[in-house]
Amino acid sequence: MSTHHFTAARWYNSIGTAEPALTIADGDTVVTETIDANGWDKHGEKVCDGPNPMNGPIAVAGAAPGDTLQVTIDAMRPIKDTGWTRDVLATNVVDPEDIRALPASERVTWLIDRNAGNCRPESPPPKMEHFVLPLEPMIGCFGVAPSHGQAISTTTSAQNGGNMDYRRFCPGTVVYLPVAVEGALFYLGDCHALQGDGEIVGTGVETCYEVTVTLKVIKGQKIVWPRGETAEDIFTIGNARPLDQALQHATSEMRRWLMEGYGLDIHGASHLMGQTVRYDIGNVYDPAYTVACRISKSWLTKPGLRQD
Amino acid sequence: MSTHHFTAARWYNSIGTAEPALTIADGDTVVTETIDANGWDKHGEKVCDGPNPMNGPIAVAGAAPGDTLQVTIDAMRPIKDTGWTRDVLATNVVDPEDIRALPASERVTWLIDRNAGNCRPESPPPKMEHFVLPLEPMIGCFGVAPSHGQAISTTTSAQNGGNMDYRRFCPGTVVYLPVAVEGALFYLGDCHALQGDGEIVGTGVETCYEVTVTLKVIKGQKIVWPRGETAEDIFTIGNARPLDQALQHATSEMRRWLMEGYGLDIHGASHLMGQTVRYDIGNVYDPAYTVACRISKSWLTKPGLRQD
Amino acid sequence: MSTHHFTAARWYNSIGTAEPALTIADGDTVVTETIDANGWDKHGEKVCDGPNPMNGPIAVAGAAPGDTLQVTIDAMRPIKDTGWTRDVLATNVVDPEDIRALPASERVTWLIDRNAGNCRPESPPPKMEHFVLPLEPMIGCFGVAPSHGQAISTTTSAQNGGNMDYRRFCPGTVVYLPVAVEGALFYLGDCHALQGDGEIVGTGVETCYEVTVTLKVIKGQKIVWPRGETAEDIFTIGNARPLDQALQHATSEMRRWLMEGYGLDIHGASHLMGQTVRYDIGNVYDPAYTVACRISKSWLTKPGLRQD
Amino acid sequence: MSTHHFTAARWYNSIGTAEPALTIADGDTVVTETIDANGWDKHGEKVCDGPNPMNGPIAVAGAAPGDTLQVTIDAMRPIKDTGWTRDVLATNVVDPEDIRALPASERVTWLIDRNAGNCRPESPPPKMEHFVLPLEPMIGCFGVAPSHGQAISTTTSAQNGGNMDYRRFCPGTVVYLPVAVEGALFYLGDCHALQGDGEIVGTGVETCYEVTVTLKVIKGQKIVWPRGETAEDIFTIGNARPLDQALQHATSEMRRWLMEGYGLDIHGASHLMGQTVRYDIGNVYDPAYTVACRISKSWLTKPGLRQD
Repeated sequence: MSTHHFTAARWYNSIGTAEPALTIADGDTVVTETIDANGWDKHGEKVCDGPNPMNGPIAVAGAAPGDTLQVTIDAMRPIKDTGWTRDVLATNVVDPEDIRALPASERVTWLIDRNAGNCRPESPPPKMEHFVLPLEPMIGCFGVAPSHGQAISTTTSAQNGGNMDYRRFCPGTVVYLPVAVEGALFYLGDCHALQGDGEIVGTGVETCYEVTVTLKVIKGQKIVWPRGETAEDIFTIGNARPLDQALQHATSEMRRWLMEGYGLDIHGASHLMGQTVRYDIGNVYDPAYTVACRISKSWLTKPGLRQD
Repeated sequence: MSTHHFTAARWYNSIGTAEPALTIADGDTVVTETIDANGWDKHGEKVCDGPNPMNGPIAVAGAAPGDTLQVTIDAMRPIKDTGWTRDVLATNVVDPEDIRALPASERVTWLIDRNAGNCRPESPPPKMEHFVLPLEPMIGCFGVAPSHGQAISTTTSAQNGGNMDYRRFCPGTVVYLPVAVEGALFYLGDCHALQGDGEIVGTGVETCYEVTVTLKVIKGQKIVWPRGETAEDIFTIGNARPLDQALQHATSEMRRWLMEGYGLDIHGASHLMGQTVRYDIGNVYDPAYTVACRISKSWLTKPGLRQD
Repeated sequence: MSTHHFTAARWYNSIGTAEPALTIADGDTVVTETIDANGWDKHGEKVCDGPNPMNGPIAVAGAAPGDTLQVTIDAMRPIKDTGWTRDVLATNVVDPEDIRALPASERVTWLIDRNAGNCRPESPPPKMEHFVLPLEPMIGCFGVAPSHGQAISTTTSAQNGGNMDYRRFCPGTVVYLPVAVEGALFYLGDCHALQGDGEIVGTGVETCYEVTVTLKVIKGQKIVWPRGETAEDIFTIGNARPLDQALQHATSEMRRWLMEGYGLDIHGASHLMGQTVRYDIGNVYDPAYTVACRISKSWLTKPGLRQD
Repeated sequence: MSTHHFTAARWYNSIGTAEPALTIADGDTVVTETIDANGWDKHGEKVCDGPNPMNGPIAVAGAAPGDTLQVTIDAMRPIKDTGWTRDVLATNVVDPEDIRALPASERVTWLIDRNAGNCRPESPPPKMEHFVLPLEPMIGCFGVAPSHGQAISTTTSAQNGGNMDYRRFCPGTVVYLPVAVEGALFYLGDCHALQGDGEIVGTGVETCYEVTVTLKVIKGQKIVWPRGETAEDIFTIGNARPLDQALQHATSEMRRWLMEGYGLDIHGASHLMGQTVRYDIGNVYDPAYTVACRISKSWLTKPGLRQD
């Protein structure tokens, strides 16, 4: 198992089938620095345009349609002392009648204290002088190339992943993505130092990170929607509008996982999900919204899809 | 402050303006036993028809339109050794194409161990033999009479509360409801021994509880949607379909609370909500879905609306 | 068959079970003058508060739960020389990002020429000097009492009818409503001189009409959602949010009608609906939206549910 | 102005930036034969895979980002004696609780009588023996390459057009599409001999057509969503889920058109739209639904965007 230090020379605003920027062996680790959602790098240079420029694609030898790509988020290290957010609630998360009262949303700078591991607005609004938040880094946008020659905008998400903006895509989480093309073609970028549920100001704390991921192919394992595993939970992802449909996709995927992966029948899966499920809202801002369906591993007898 | 032991003699399937079954002083406590969602009492007798029969209405002296009713859920004591659930995922929470594969959902019995404080299916499905869940009691349906002569079915919910099926409506939580008629006219029932997010089998563990609530009028405090406070958080509730709209209502109500109640400006409220908010899905089964918008009290300088 | 001239002495803002203001025989005709959506009568007097005050309830002898009430809209005669509309698109029908650019919506007067049969804004905006529209009167809100003690606000609609704001509820149309209580308890009001699809400024041309309806009980005929019949078409109504769900209700009701009422099998119903159906959007403004599913009678072998 | 007879040698399942199969001058006409949604040609040969294989891309000289491509659908000539449909309502257009009662949907053959200009199911279901429908041909899927390197699946639609399945995309209609790349890169395919609103069995009568279109660049005219013009009406298109959002896009685009193109102020646009608008549902089956917002040209003083 090798470790590759990958420096992107160009970036993509759509996740599709393109010439691999790097090809690795199954199980290899990649360390790469990302730029922010608008294309600014750690030096404050604008190196490309938004939305959400991606590093990649990274081809994984042996990955083929019908397989699953296991992405372990090993580490995220902040590499910049500032980030930015929008400063007013997005129009689509409040009552339509309230929108006229909202001022235009501006980009504001946040200070990132890498030693202390926290961040705060550079110019705190009144009564927010002590508003200092611990860093909870996450990858906003990552995924694999979709089928049928599609190239899907990094503003949105689909079965192949994409701009899901879910805060549990953080160090320690293992993610599973459905492979649709030879080599899988993995992309990542758009890291956040922090983000609330729903990304309801339209941004997390947008900044640059050094990300370490390990990519492994699970041959012959077919999944429909992204899945994940943390120390405590397994979860499934649905990406769609409205939230109701995103939730349906995530719930259907969890039912399949519990029945096919853990051997429960429909009644067992229904009891477990009905009385213990937790739903998280990844984002309710992007063109496709993201809902996670999450189950505690305390009820399960084996880890997720991992083969290690 | 008196404590009233209230025994319902009739039950309501709609929350509206009706003759008070009990009138109490501002600040009094009420202890009452509820029957289950289908009208079965703790002795196993069917005493009325569903859906979700309510105890009440309880008039609170002095409550008037434009006030807020503060409902403290003091305690919930299980009073029955069984409960029931549906045993298959509801049709509206899975992908439409998956529905044909779901068998019809049946009512199944759960055993409640009141001493041990847990519950389990009477006939566990395969691999679920050790599926024993701690009791996490909650009130599924409660609210106050709405305006304009409306009487709203206990299958659904609105600004006045109702069938919200949210698991944080549990002992220790303080709930705030907008008063629309003289005396507020409070109803409650439909208790669950436990429920996952979304109530996605269409039920929690449906059973009978003795509930203790303290009702207090906050004069001249106007709110639009239900609000709540736990030891850790404040939260607001939106009830509507689709989930997107329920989330908009809850988010708008939280913005109002933070700005009017805590003195934040729109940027402060947006920073706080944008980077720290948590969303919970109460139910995604009833005619109106329920979403909670939740903020940690660690960022706030005073308790919710409480005046005690 | 008698004709009753009914003058309302009080009005209702919710459709529920209340003391009948008039009781008629099965098949009788009622002539009644309505007031406008805000409670102004034909003399310009405000006689009650909005929303959408209803004349009624009218009990029909012999109607019982499980029956259908057939409402023939015989005639609508304008009785006022003015009406009013809102003058800016509603916030929920445009993109959220466009809302900030919309000015506040004001009430503006329209002139109704009863002889010429047309109407126009009293103060036409630039380039609208010749904007004179033929009257196309319709009943905005009407329905029967719902089940379970509910009283449903006249701002919204449900299986029992209500504020559907559909322009084919006009003279010549026969409407079928599901009876849920003894006597059916029919209400009507909120007439429009004209309205586009969706009621997207939040109003039609709101004014007062003399309405003539004939009410007939179809014993033992059970329907779920309102149905209707014009000279050319049959249609079914779904009331819900989002539009998707309203459309599902209307489509399911049409499938039932074609299969149970016209003897088609699922393939025949699917061919007919799939290749010839027309959908209309009644309103996309009220709390519940309204969608009609419409099929040309040219493919059908008998009239709707009528027994005459 | 030349006329090109274009024979596709390969087909695309996504609409994106690809090597032009044909380059034409501004204003030229193209005649091309399409294959059906599953890749069957007029000879009954399967020449490629679905979904909805596209002829193209056709580059139009001079078209550049920010322009509008005017597509006149000059003619559609049926070139096959059969078509096919699905034979059961789609799962997403009926109430979830009704889905279990629906049999699996099968592909069935329809006979097309090109001389008589009608079609009918080869094996009519009971009571449908006389169900013979006039041909009303339309283009199900067509559009131009989107921005940012996207390639959008022909199962769905977006601002660039795509699988809109709207029955007014028929001969005589002029369509306007927003150009996002050099040459516009126009694609088309997926023709239907007939289709009801919503494409609610998941298909129209799917078959092969010879299509004649004339492509013209309107320089410097920027639009956001597709627009169209028939002999009677102008219309705008929104593509999204749920229907509510598709309707918002279409309504916002019509407001822009009326204000920027016809000089109405917001009140004039609101009066016109509020009291006369018609909404059509193109499809309620594809990943993005399609809604058209339509206004009669009788109120307008000039044709759409046409410069001829």
